[in-house]
Amino acid sequence: MRFFYAPEVSPLHQLDADESKHMVRVLRANTGDEFEIVDGRGRRYKGVLKEANKRCCVLATTLLEEVPAPSAGLTLVIAPTKSTERFEWLLEKAMEYGAHRIQPIWTERSERKVSKDDRWNRILISALKQSKQLWLTELAPAMPWTDWVASENSQRSKGFVAHCEPTDKLHFFDEVPVGAPCWIGIGPEGDFTSVEIEMAQKAGFTPVSLGDQRLRTETAGLAAVQMHQLAQRR
Amino acid sequence: MRFFYAPEVSPLHQLDADESKHMVRVLRANTGDEFEIVDGRGRRYKGVLKEANKRCCVLATTLLEEVPAPSAGLTLVIAPTKSTERFEWLLEKAMEYGAHRIQPIWTERSERKVSKDDRWNRILISALKQSKQLWLTELAPAMPWTDWVASENSQRSKGFVAHCEPTDKLHFFDEVPVGAPCWIGIGPEGDFTSVEIEMAQKAGFTPVSLGDQRLRTETAGLAAVQMHQLAQRR
Repeated sequence: MRFFYAPEVSPLHQLDADESKHMVRVLRANTGDEFEIVDGRGRRYKGVLKEANKRCCVLATTLLEEVPAPSAGLTLVIAPTKSTERFEWLLEKAMEYGAHRIQPIWTERSERKVSKDDRWNRILISALKQSKQLWLTELAPAMPWTDWVASENSQRSKGFVAHCEPTDKLHFFDEVPVGAPCWIGIGPEGDFTSVEIEMAQKAGFTPVSLGDQRLRTETAGLAAVQMHQLAQRR
Repeated sequence: MRFFYAPEVSPLHQLDADESKHMVRVLRANTGDEFEIVDGRGRRYKGVLKEANKRCCVLATTLLEEVPAPSAGLTLVIAPTKSTERFEWLLEKAMEYGAHRIQPIWTERSERKVSKDDRWNRILISALKQSKQLWLTELAPAMPWTDWVASENSQRSKGFVAHCEPTDKLHFFDEVPVGAPCWIGIGPEGDFTSVEIEMAQKAGFTPVSLGDQRLRTETAGLAAVQMHQLAQRR
């Protein structure tokens, strides 16, 4: 069955012109055909095509399932990589794993400070549909690391800073809170500066390691998402 | 310091023509310059350039460190994806995480059955150097899944088969043996066929799940590598 995404689903749901054209021309859908619609906020609907019109299709929807947000969501606070491709790969994989939220940050050593919200959201939505999940990974507007550390949002849950400086650090996997939200900061190629790390420590956040390997930024990001999820199984 | 890879390192180590040219023309190295050499088999050497010759450089090497192979290595038995790019991405990431061995397999639903050993090994070596590790992820010659299941190698350690058929399955993370080698089979886009799964079960291997999400082949492969590593921390 075809799987659609729509951020808001009404009982008589109208598709926009692009989707309607796709429905009629590509899927060759007819009145009475059934579809599944997810809103990325935990709800899954059945949609029955009532009007097959290439400009405006109408689906009669009924709620099939509603899943609450996981109580222990991870916010991945990460510097987009210099290579767009590597960051986009991370977005796809983080959504496949079911990450809660991604907060892009600009740091002193960030080589690229351009956020592509529309494109990035399209990648997340495509991975949501491909992996048939009900909660869309949320993409927050990019902000400087200093602003994030000083923000109210960063204070709302336990926070961690992953870095590679040779100091004694706990392993993130051993420190993940179970059943409660948290966030982890991951620096760009070349890592956070020591000033950036110190600033976060002074604000009360915990420096952690992701293991002995020297991981690329995007690999570290994905490793953190999975550590967080597997720690919930303990 | 520059980081080199050479599968065999001798006390007076000669670089081949390509590496020698790179050493002299690109790195502009001079006699007396120091380098690090890893053999991908646990050994790290210091190398001092004795002869800077664009056809044949010679380095005097001394062993700095020797790390034994991890006792609990995972062999990732996986169907290469239709998109070469996605499989090559997996090779890079698996090496970054420090996977022990990758065994490509051809299955009934494999859409591509071409192995590119030279190219794939170059990707692994590049990731070895980038992540500064001492053990190179080993790439085994591709073989049909049926041959793998019937092989002596598959019987040498505990084996698992990840699949998405809706049957009761244990979670791989909960089943990973600690301190002992094991392998896990991961199917192509469209999964193993039920015949392929049954065949492995009859041979004594355990069906497992990697979680509730529907993961792409390469994402499932990487998830398994990390589950195996994190399970060793328990």
